[in-house]
Amino acid sequence: MTYEAYLGYDRAQLLEKLQAKVSSKRLAHMLAVEETSKRLARQYGVDSEKAGLAGLLHDYAKECPDQVFLDIIDREGLDQDLKNWGNNVWHGLLGGYVIAAELGVTDQEILTSIARHTVGAAGMSQLDKIVYVADYIEPTRNFPGVEVARLLADQSLESAVAYETAKTIAYLTQKGLPIYPETLATYNAYCPYLPTDAY
Amino acid sequence: MTYEAYLGYDRAQLLEKLQAKVSSKRLAHMLAVEETSKRLARQYGVDSEKAGLAGLLHDYAKECPDQVFLDIIDREGLDQDLKNWGNNVWHGLLGGYVIAAELGVTDQEILTSIARHTVGAAGMSQLDKIVYVADYIEPTRNFPGVEVARLLADQSLESAVAYETAKTIAYLTQKGLPIYPETLATYNAYCPYLPTDAY
Repeated sequence: MTYEAYLGYDRAQLLEKLQAKVSSKRLAHMLAVEETSKRLARQYGVDSEKAGLAGLLHDYAKECPDQVFLDIIDREGLDQDLKNWGNNVWHGLLGGYVIAAELGVTDQEILTSIARHTVGAAGMSQLDKIVYVADYIEPTRNFPGVEVARLLADQSLESAVAYETAKTIAYLTQKGLPIYPETLATYNAYCPYLPTDAY
Repeated sequence: MTYEAYLGYDRAQLLEKLQAKVSSKRLAHMLAVEETSKRLARQYGVDSEKAGLAGLLHDYAKECPDQVFLDIIDREGLDQDLKNWGNNVWHGLLGGYVIAAELGVTDQEILTSIARHTVGAAGMSQLDKIVYVADYIEPTRNFPGVEVARLLADQSLESAVAYETAKTIAYLTQKGLPIYPETLATYNAYCPYLPTDAY
């Protein structure tokens, strides 16, 4: 039964829980990331069930109120500086706490890939890279550069990670928005894989 | 006598030393940063002699061989990670060691503003901001965005720091080049001052 090894219940029951947790638009995105994660996993020799579940769950905590994350930061004794950031950082980095508590997921590789899906990390596993990239290129995504990202993802996960991170940083500077330091660490670790003709 | 309080000798003698140290093209840029730093200092109520000297000296170490900086890192017991960067970071962060040793400058505010002229810092003094911005907007500079930076510098040093740092980061991501973490700290500290219509 799909995902039962990780959940103790099956995918159909999980979908019911997801429908109760997030909007239908967000669920459609999560389902698309599930599919793209499975496809990339098969292409790159990664466990596709694990990748599919991580992709499906990656935005589970995206609609949680801020107070949920602020409480997690206190309860888990995390760096208080995290409170200066917002949902965009929290739903990824801290999403695993919500997912573990509410869905019973304990697999650390899955939880880590979800923690890293927004800001990445300097040394990502293949699974981490797959969820990070799938979130950016899934078929319903439509923004300048997404086609380049899709082409790069077919050639190398590292180049796709680099491109996605570079574009994200450039976008944030154009908007004058703060950049989480781990995003820079991701960029610096993967920028050597950025094709010079990607832009 | 101009600069004698900081040097023990005067500006004419300093210019002879600079001519022997850097190319004529670089010296022209350093002289332009001297002038712009003095102008900004008068505008923002900062000691214009101090700003002029910091501006004039900011690139003093730019043509030093890499080994000079690698030796400084070892001799001063600095973070070995600095060795992974290059002249662009070193000539600023470590330039003060060369300037102190070869020119006899001991004023810490001047040396700090030179140390910060390339990567900035989260909490820059007015002098630091002036040298950082003057380096970007001096009259011989000619690149997309320099006119916006000049306009912003007339309105607020903080907005000019933010704009310059945002543009630098965006440029580096387009080239796939690594970004020094202190540059990100500068951006995150000053991005709230970035006018939303600056681009």
